[in-house]
Amino acid sequence: MISVGIIGGTGYTGKFLIQFCNQHQNIAEMHIYANTTAGQNLHDVLPELSGIVSDLEIKSVENLSYDHDLYFVTLPHGKSLDVVPQLVESGKKVIDLGGDFRLDQAELYDKWYGLNHTNSDLLSKKHYGLADVYNAYGQELIANPGCYPTAALLSTLPLTKNAGDNIASINISSYSGASGAGKSLKQHLLLSELYSNVQAYNVGTHRHQPEISQEMNKSGFDGAFTFVTHLLPISTGIYSTAIIQLKEKLHADDVNQFYSVAYASKEFVRLRDVPPQLKWAVGTNFCDLNVVVNENSVIVTSAIDNLIKGASGQAVQNMNQMFGWNESMGLLTGGEMKTESMEVV
Amino acid sequence: MISVGIIGGTGYTGKFLIQFCNQHQNIAEMHIYANTTAGQNLHDVLPELSGIVSDLEIKSVENLSYDHDLYFVTLPHGKSLDVVPQLVESGKKVIDLGGDFRLDQAELYDKWYGLNHTNSDLLSKKHYGLADVYNAYGQELIANPGCYPTAALLSTLPLTKNAGDNIASINISSYSGASGAGKSLKQHLLLSELYSNVQAYNVGTHRHQPEISQEMNKSGFDGAFTFVTHLLPISTGIYSTAIIQLKEKLHADDVNQFYSVAYASKEFVRLRDVPPQLKWAVGTNFCDLNVVVNENSVIVTSAIDNLIKGASGQAVQNMNQMFGWNESMGLLTGGEMKTESMEVV
Amino acid sequence: MISVGIIGGTGYTGKFLIQFCNQHQNIAEMHIYANTTAGQNLHDVLPELSGIVSDLEIKSVENLSYDHDLYFVTLPHGKSLDVVPQLVESGKKVIDLGGDFRLDQAELYDKWYGLNHTNSDLLSKKHYGLADVYNAYGQELIANPGCYPTAALLSTLPLTKNAGDNIASINISSYSGASGAGKSLKQHLLLSELYSNVQAYNVGTHRHQPEISQEMNKSGFDGAFTFVTHLLPISTGIYSTAIIQLKEKLHADDVNQFYSVAYASKEFVRLRDVPPQLKWAVGTNFCDLNVVVNENSVIVTSAIDNLIKGASGQAVQNMNQMFGWNESMGLLTGGEMKTESMEVV
Amino acid sequence: MISVGIIGGTGYTGKFLIQFCNQHQNIAEMHIYANTTAGQNLHDVLPELSGIVSDLEIKSVENLSYDHDLYFVTLPHGKSLDVVPQLVESGKKVIDLGGDFRLDQAELYDKWYGLNHTNSDLLSKKHYGLADVYNAYGQELIANPGCYPTAALLSTLPLTKNAGDNIASINISSYSGASGAGKSLKQHLLLSELYSNVQAYNVGTHRHQPEISQEMNKSGFDGAFTFVTHLLPISTGIYSTAIIQLKEKLHADDVNQFYSVAYASKEFVRLRDVPPQLKWAVGTNFCDLNVVVNENSVIVTSAIDNLIKGASGQAVQNMNQMFGWNESMGLLTGGEMKTESMEVV
Repeated sequence: MISVGIIGGTGYTGKFLIQFCNQHQNIAEMHIYANTTAGQNLHDVLPELSGIVSDLEIKSVENLSYDHDLYFVTLPHGKSLDVVPQLVESGKKVIDLGGDFRLDQAELYDKWYGLNHTNSDLLSKKHYGLADVYNAYGQELIANPGCYPTAALLSTLPLTKNAGDNIASINISSYSGASGAGKSLKQHLLLSELYSNVQAYNVGTHRHQPEISQEMNKSGFDGAFTFVTHLLPISTGIYSTAIIQLKEKLHADDVNQFYSVAYASKEFVRLRDVPPQLKWAVGTNFCDLNVVVNENSVIVTSAIDNLIKGASGQAVQNMNQMFGWNESMGLLTGGEMKTESMEVV
Repeated sequence: MISVGIIGGTGYTGKFLIQFCNQHQNIAEMHIYANTTAGQNLHDVLPELSGIVSDLEIKSVENLSYDHDLYFVTLPHGKSLDVVPQLVESGKKVIDLGGDFRLDQAELYDKWYGLNHTNSDLLSKKHYGLADVYNAYGQELIANPGCYPTAALLSTLPLTKNAGDNIASINISSYSGASGAGKSLKQHLLLSELYSNVQAYNVGTHRHQPEISQEMNKSGFDGAFTFVTHLLPISTGIYSTAIIQLKEKLHADDVNQFYSVAYASKEFVRLRDVPPQLKWAVGTNFCDLNVVVNENSVIVTSAIDNLIKGASGQAVQNMNQMFGWNESMGLLTGGEMKTESMEVV
Repeated sequence: MISVGIIGGTGYTGKFLIQFCNQHQNIAEMHIYANTTAGQNLHDVLPELSGIVSDLEIKSVENLSYDHDLYFVTLPHGKSLDVVPQLVESGKKVIDLGGDFRLDQAELYDKWYGLNHTNSDLLSKKHYGLADVYNAYGQELIANPGCYPTAALLSTLPLTKNAGDNIASINISSYSGASGAGKSLKQHLLLSELYSNVQAYNVGTHRHQPEISQEMNKSGFDGAFTFVTHLLPISTGIYSTAIIQLKEKLHADDVNQFYSVAYASKEFVRLRDVPPQLKWAVGTNFCDLNVVVNENSVIVTSAIDNLIKGASGQAVQNMNQMFGWNESMGLLTGGEMKTESMEVV
Repeated sequence: MISVGIIGGTGYTGKFLIQFCNQHQNIAEMHIYANTTAGQNLHDVLPELSGIVSDLEIKSVENLSYDHDLYFVTLPHGKSLDVVPQLVESGKKVIDLGGDFRLDQAELYDKWYGLNHTNSDLLSKKHYGLADVYNAYGQELIANPGCYPTAALLSTLPLTKNAGDNIASINISSYSGASGAGKSLKQHLLLSELYSNVQAYNVGTHRHQPEISQEMNKSGFDGAFTFVTHLLPISTGIYSTAIIQLKEKLHADDVNQFYSVAYASKEFVRLRDVPPQLKWAVGTNFCDLNVVVNENSVIVTSAIDNLIKGASGQAVQNMNQMFGWNESMGLLTGGEMKTESMEVV
């Protein structure tokens, strides 16, 4: 049983972290730290949690206690750098859900985030927590992947790893619900503006692009990669369509084999024989994937919940790996609970 | 042919005013005045109008010209009071789309709007422009009705006028799309908050309540009136359900007669034999109405476009009445245009 | 530990029953019976349950086993009558989620449902399972309330019970998401028709009206009651607005007291000091309620998930009461699970 | 002034054809023919047209009159073949909005549509009506392009035409609102299923794929082309994202030049300097386009209304070209009308 601190805990991802930690069997204690909502009660900030999570006072990040075993950090880009190094130095385990530790090179961070990274040492020590590909057991600092990279990498790594040299280009169009932009007050995020609407954004400049490239490159692919992000007129979910152009044809059986082997033991990746519906994945920690081989191209469609698999759920999955616990603890309420209760009754 | 000034013209209602005026046969010239968008080009502020309305520079309200024949004023509550009196004194015609001139009594305005009304003289001179009930011919200052009152009053006035003494209570639940709140940056108006959501608001305190009461009372009803407003998770439209409890039963034929007589010559009210679909009215200046007599109650459902019939469309209809023009000029593109062209060809 | 049969189990309410039963500590075994989907595998019919609920073959209702302890019946109106009597005669416990046993009088059923009720004996033996008002302990046959009646009755019974004589009229406008209509293939339920749309329906003829009246009358109210239902352009949730006109003013404190006393020990009713947001309740078994006293009227807004509190969740709550189990078992995954695990670890 | 017959006129595209024809200056008469709705009145089938278009009886396609000058045919795939040949033989002008005449080769039609094309002669005589690229003046039979091909081809033809040899691959992800599927009663098109949802469909097998290839090939591109279609949880609009991988870098100025030259005189293509918002195009006959050159790739995002630019609006534009009329007649109500009225007054 551990004690957990959630820093920046009252945004959309924070809300799910609170719920997952609340129902997690190995978490004895949870404290929430925030900036703008510090001093308020949890039930006043997130009234929907009343009756589900006990009320508690949200503490100020400035009065951060170092008594917890593990810290989830959900601060805006640039702000994690002010908090994470001290925690790591104090021997605390940290899972950072922002972008400050995802890239391996400080220069790349400076270029894409327009900030100055002050701790390249930690960049090289961190574990990139793509939980269905890499295992986080024993890690101290985990950079939780971005939401788009989670979908994009789960869609392509089995192919880049097994046939990276045979890929001419990877072309990804991703669509995200508006919760991906958080609660920031911007006109284009108003329902009256975005309802029934769609718009591509940050074409060629999205910060998740170098993150995706970095992991693709490590896995054996170094060709052309283009990535276009769009805003969907819904609240939650990412739908990602990867069109992979091959240099030479691959047999469909071989391609399917790459994916089925890669995810054979991964309970949170569901290979589908039709393109997934986004809603299958929303509200869960699953990534639903479909692979189609069509002439010289491979088309991979995938669906995730951007706030769960793309943020809080994967963070809890990383925590479970980190401590060597059952990977789905706190995430798959059904089966898990049933088993517990059956032992007890 | 007249010249028109649109003051505060780049919000949601302004956009429709621009389009209606642009296609209006008797408007030779249109100037747009605004505060936050002054100095910008129309096409930069409203890119969707490119190719439809010629580009023009938005002028500052501070440099308002007094050369126009008619002014549409779409400023926030309280701000029309700074502009309208001088226009009226200068002999200009004014249609105010805000709340500053809708109530007859300054005290009522002060109470419900929390402001101090400085011109009760104009309050008594203004014409309340419920265009399908009152005629604005020859008027100088028109207070264009609120969006909720338009639907509520068109739903109930035929009954209050003909059987006001027999009504025990009027109970109205109205639901509005988010565009009714304009482009104001408030968290609960974000798509990520409001999508798939509904919430009642301003229960017992909505500013449209005294406006509705005022006109109901004039028409002969002085009983209990309760009004509850809700936010719909869509962009546009108001759906209003009036449950009118009668003291003594009325025959359905008589009730239907009240409505069919009231709207016999009103081309923008469509009496329906089933409850209207909201989308029938959205995008048009129509109010769709259905009346059901059920035991001792009368149930009237109505649908309008809150930005058109509930604001800009009714304002143009009022202009047409004011000048004695065809009531639908600029509003019903189809038939009107056809007639023109048939004469020409 | 009991064995459960879910009859008609692959519709929207069935899906939630499956999930709740799957995670319920006192259910050892669950079988699913259906008509159109009989013979198929659960994961093929409801792919989103893969990885959450073990796959199983859906059995035919025609081959219904009488070996289970409890049966949830989610058949269409009229069809429960073919199944429930034999089950009850065989000494099995039954929770019927349809309308066949909700009304007390066969004549009323025949009139409103347009069918011929063949078992008025069971009508008088059944327990009307409004779980936050009546307790189902030891019952054999439970008629699970309709979705609209659940919201309407929780909103009004504390007042009708305590001040029924002082109520002049109750006027309820309710709005429901489209899932309330199930998966039936009707044109007006297509997204292309209903999106961004609203429509009142069954005005004065909705089958839930006599059900609401019946329980209001029992609680002490016999005045005018009008009920109007509308379709919302969203998938899930019911928002209900009750405007209650009083004969004589009541003090707000007294009214609030009626509600706080009624729901003091009811963990699934959350009294709110602002009108609830629909999304607070969606995905949960909670009913969120707000009470406003405004002059001679009381306005109660309430929000529920039509498929959970309005169907499957309340059915599981009724099962828990029936067997004398903790009322929230299987429904409130968080707190419950935590307690279990803390005892175990 | 001509007389027009609209065959299959009460679906989504038919409704817009009726409205455009109704407001068109050179159409004196319009008759509507349909199958399932034959014998009904227009206002009963499309109540929203009441007050906008005069009521008329919908005639049966079986009693088709040959007295009209021009026929719009909006029958399902395969059904146009039963009607169009006789009309053409009778010397009537025809604009077919279905897929029966879009492909140049009968074999291709048979393969992709799973039908047997019976008139390859007409396939070679037809004009492919991509109205902002080809001019239809004097044509007798126009195959109106598919909705996806309209967006896809307007996005890519300027580049394939000018630099087709330099393109390694074209990768298009397109998202369409549900109205693209018409009013067909399929479970996945119910609002309760599709709301908040997204799904790719017909991956590698969509009938619009050979249509796009055909025109790309004619323009000078013969490389790899992959096309993936998705269903958006909204009613109307297509958003298309084309990622074009180049063999060798092109200068951004040159690429932009290709597009600005191609569309210099095309009033219905709006080149944008940011990715278009879908809603800019919805409700109009415009195609909004944005071109970004990013390293070795060109990214073109485009937005159209699938029912207008992707069907009825382009059909009217084709009619205008066919007869040598002003291209925007009936389509751009604003400016056009104003000009008329200014001449008249």
